[in-house]
Amino acid sequence: MTNLPAVVLLSGGIDSTVLIHHVARDLGHDTIHAISFDYGQRHSRELDCARYQAAAAGAAEHRIIDIGFMGEILKDGSALLTGGAEVPALAALSEKDLEQPPTYVPNRNMMLLSIAAAFAESRGVQHLYYGAQAQDEYGYWDCTAAFLAAINGVLSLNRRNAVRVHAPFVSRSKAETVRLGIALNVDFAHTWSCYRGGEKPCGACPTCIERLNAFAANGTPDPVEYER
Amino acid sequence: MTNLPAVVLLSGGIDSTVLIHHVARDLGHDTIHAISFDYGQRHSRELDCARYQAAAAGAAEHRIIDIGFMGEILKDGSALLTGGAEVPALAALSEKDLEQPPTYVPNRNMMLLSIAAAFAESRGVQHLYYGAQAQDEYGYWDCTAAFLAAINGVLSLNRRNAVRVHAPFVSRSKAETVRLGIALNVDFAHTWSCYRGGEKPCGACPTCIERLNAFAANGTPDPVEYER
Repeated sequence: MTNLPAVVLLSGGIDSTVLIHHVARDLGHDTIHAISFDYGQRHSRELDCARYQAAAAGAAEHRIIDIGFMGEILKDGSALLTGGAEVPALAALSEKDLEQPPTYVPNRNMMLLSIAAAFAESRGVQHLYYGAQAQDEYGYWDCTAAFLAAINGVLSLNRRNAVRVHAPFVSRSKAETVRLGIALNVDFAHTWSCYRGGEKPCGACPTCIERLNAFAANGTPDPVEYER
Repeated sequence: MTNLPAVVLLSGGIDSTVLIHHVARDLGHDTIHAISFDYGQRHSRELDCARYQAAAAGAAEHRIIDIGFMGEILKDGSALLTGGAEVPALAALSEKDLEQPPTYVPNRNMMLLSIAAAFAESRGVQHLYYGAQAQDEYGYWDCTAAFLAAINGVLSLNRRNAVRVHAPFVSRSKAETVRLGIALNVDFAHTWSCYRGGEKPCGACPTCIERLNAFAANGTPDPVEYER
C-alpha cells in the first residue's frame, strides 16, 4: 500500500494516537487526513492531544467535526456526554454494567464511522483507519471484529468509491498497542484517556485503570501526571 | 405490532410523508417519534412540510437535527448541498450520471440511519422506519434492499437494545406509494420533492419528473403548483 492516501479517526487517546503514527510510518500511506469529533464529551482536552498528534504524524489535514447534535439527541443516554450521569469508578461497576457500561454512547461508533466514511469518500480516499482494540470488547458491541466486518459489509455496496475500514488493533491488547507506540517513539505525554473532565486524569475510571495497566505491562511509566 | 413506539425518518418528501401516516394508521404503532435532518440542503422548505406532516400524523415528538457538518465536510461532493454544483435537468444526465447522479451525497443514508438509530436506541425504541423506495435504486446504492439488510446486519450486533430498520416501500414504485397516500387522505399539497431551491418546485429536475409521473400513473393531479 504505497502512495495511497488514508483517513485516520483520531480521538487523542492512546489507541488512535499510536494508530496514526503506525499508518504514517509503517503502512506506507503518504497522505494522512486526520478526523476528530467534538461531540460535547467531558474529556474535550483529548481534542488538544489530537491536534498535537496529527501534527506530529505529519497529517496533511486535520478536521474536527462538530457533532454537537449527539448531546442533544442522546442527553440521558450516556455518562460520557456533558450533562449525563457521573462516570463511575471501575470498582463500582456491576456485571450488568460490564455487558454495556454507563460510558457507552448509543450507536456512537456507527455514527462516527459513517461520517468518517463520507469524509473519505468525498475526498476519493479508499482507506479509513480506526483504533478499536480488543480490550474494549467486554462492554462495547461496536468495538468488535464482527462490528467492523458488518460496517464493511455496508460500505462495500457502494458502486463507485467504496471505502474500506481497517482496525489493525482490533485483536491486540492495549499493552501491545502501547508497546508499538514506544517503538514508534510516540509522545504519550500528549494523549488523553480519562473519561472524567478534570484538570488531570483521575487515575480511577475504567479507561485510566486500563491505561495504567497497559504501561505497567510494558514496565514503562506513563508520562502523564494523575490526580492520584 | 400493537402498543409499540416507532421512530420515523421524515424528510417532507412524498415517500416519507406517506410512510409516517402509514406507520401511524396501518401498522399499529401508538407513539411516533419523527426525526428530520437539516443538512444545508437547497430544498430546506421540505422541513416545513415535515413539521406539517409530523403534526398531521399525530407524532408525539418531532426533532429536527442540525447536521450542518455535512455541508462542511462534503462541500464539493454533491449538487444537493448549498454551494455545490447546479442540479441538472433529468434530460441532461448521462448514463454514467444515472449510475450515481450528481445529487448523490456521499454515504448520506448510512449517516442518517446511524443517527436515527442512536436516537431510537436512546429512547428505548426498537422500530425505525425509513422511506427508501425502489425507483431510487437506479442511482443510489444506499436506497436498496441489500443496503437495508447490511445496515440491519450492523445494528443486530447490539447486545442490549438492538434497533431494526424497516423500509416498507423498498420494493414499491413511487406510483404505488402515491396510491397508498391517496387512500390515507394524505395532504400532498404539504410535501416537497424538488431538488432545486426555488419558491415553487421546478417541474424539471429528476425528482420533480418522477413525482409528476407517479401522480399521472394514478390519474390524479399533483396538488402542488409548479414553476412550469
